[in-house]
Amino acid sequence: MRAELLACDWGTTNLRAWTLDGEGQVVAEADFDLGVSTLGPGEAARRFADTVRPKLQAEDLPAIVCGMAGSDRGWIGAPYLEIPGDLAKLAAGLVTTPGEGPLARIVPGLRCRRLDGEPDVMRGEETQIAGWLAQDAARREGRRLICHPGTHTKWVMVEEGRIERFVTAMSGELFALLTRHSLMRTEAPAEDPALFDEGLKAAGAGDALAARLFAGRARVVTGLRPAESTAAFLSGVLIGADVASSPALLGLARVEGVELMGDERLCGWYRRALQARGIKSEFHSGEAAAVAGLFALHRRAEAP
Amino acid sequence: MRAELLACDWGTTNLRAWTLDGEGQVVAEADFDLGVSTLGPGEAARRFADTVRPKLQAEDLPAIVCGMAGSDRGWIGAPYLEIPGDLAKLAAGLVTTPGEGPLARIVPGLRCRRLDGEPDVMRGEETQIAGWLAQDAARREGRRLICHPGTHTKWVMVEEGRIERFVTAMSGELFALLTRHSLMRTEAPAEDPALFDEGLKAAGAGDALAARLFAGRARVVTGLRPAESTAAFLSGVLIGADVASSPALLGLARVEGVELMGDERLCGWYRRALQARGIKSEFHSGEAAAVAGLFALHRRAEAP
Repeated sequence: MRAELLACDWGTTNLRAWTLDGEGQVVAEADFDLGVSTLGPGEAARRFADTVRPKLQAEDLPAIVCGMAGSDRGWIGAPYLEIPGDLAKLAAGLVTTPGEGPLARIVPGLRCRRLDGEPDVMRGEETQIAGWLAQDAARREGRRLICHPGTHTKWVMVEEGRIERFVTAMSGELFALLTRHSLMRTEAPAEDPALFDEGLKAAGAGDALAARLFAGRARVVTGLRPAESTAAFLSGVLIGADVASSPALLGLARVEGVELMGDERLCGWYRRALQARGIKSEFHSGEAAAVAGLFALHRRAEAP
Repeated sequence: MRAELLACDWGTTNLRAWTLDGEGQVVAEADFDLGVSTLGPGEAARRFADTVRPKLQAEDLPAIVCGMAGSDRGWIGAPYLEIPGDLAKLAAGLVTTPGEGPLARIVPGLRCRRLDGEPDVMRGEETQIAGWLAQDAARREGRRLICHPGTHTKWVMVEEGRIERFVTAMSGELFALLTRHSLMRTEAPAEDPALFDEGLKAAGAGDALAARLFAGRARVVTGLRPAESTAAFLSGVLIGADVASSPALLGLARVEGVELMGDERLCGWYRRALQARGIKSEFHSGEAAAVAGLFALHRRAEAP
């Protein structure tokens, strides 16, 4: 296998890179503690050349990069394209980095106007979804609801292979804020399924979240549960509320099934929350989807 | 006017004290930067004797204290009493501080089981509500819905002068977390009515809060609004969602009118949010209610 492409997902806190052969198979991979949030102005190009390329022996390969590298604080601003979005539109919107050195292209993000009139944005997930759609033609038929959990969980409606609509819920960020900075802050892990299920139940229909969350404190203050239980309970409340209420903002009165994409452990908690509501879900590796998406976008860009 | 009672609201971040005459009128008052959260173990009694009593020339007066001073981390644990709660029950539950020195009594808190099965607690607001009820016999007839906004906003159902049920929404704490620690953190003020109203609209019916809040970020990322607009918008989303969804957890399908109690400025924003939903409200000073409640509880405790 000879590496022909350097593919990267450059996020806020982390950079993940793969070299791929001519078939899109991974030749080598590496993680870098080099999130966009740690970069000084104009520093991205230098760090990419000095650190990322040498580590993967990819000094001369063409590169393609998705994620926050395309934001104002990243490498070079790659605009948010208006939905609907598909592989062809994303490929046409690739932005080539300026300056010397081998070719590097940045994937644009997507924006939409939600049904409630508010704007929404994504950057990074569009590449995974494009890759997931490229992996199997059957996925490009009919309507699919994708949930991509994370700091900012994305709920994405795909129709006939196009991203038609999406909504972001900051469930992961709320969890981090509550467990790190609130009066309920705790260093105990959030991995207890029984406590998580108590949180799911306390989430109700996803309404009145500020009140549902306070139960986490009242449980401890009244001695019902120990303080170490709070993180798992809050995780259940937040994920339960997300699953119960976010799809409605896509205009979905009822959810039949969900494609879960992203980190396997976090997707497992969402799967549990969906199951509790009688909703089927299937897990798809976010990493495999990112690799497939970056490769497909590169191929499309190189096509005559 | 001769001071006969030292009345205090000793909260997490602040201690507010008044000396009262035999009619409950304020003789003198003072604020202390002496919140319960700043106290070392066992320190409350000493600071009260060394700092609070001398400042108000109240070295020998009987004292009555409500708020977090009655929590485990305060002066002495005064238990949470089960609802329903009224003046007589609170007075019967007063806890006298141990040790030498003049008499000091601590007001207990209240606890309840919410309609969704979760526990809830209050400490401090019960004294204000008891005082508000004591101020006017007409308030002790029929059913009243009280909203006490704050870090932890209380929605309290009062029937025939008794606190029958309540629910806490951590709207104020979420606002502090989001504006201080989130990716949307900002030092800009939250005082713009037009932006607040945009937040009210974006709050919808109070469902899907984690998604509604993300609009604050998407608005800035897409250039729709400047970053300085975020705090006022988030305030509108949080207060709008609170007003739209918390009363349902009290079993109220519809809200006719609300008694707003507490800080005048914050109550003003809640009033605006209620107005936008066509709900009448009336403001009542939390400070006057606290003074009236502490005085009434003292009187009841001293009665033969």
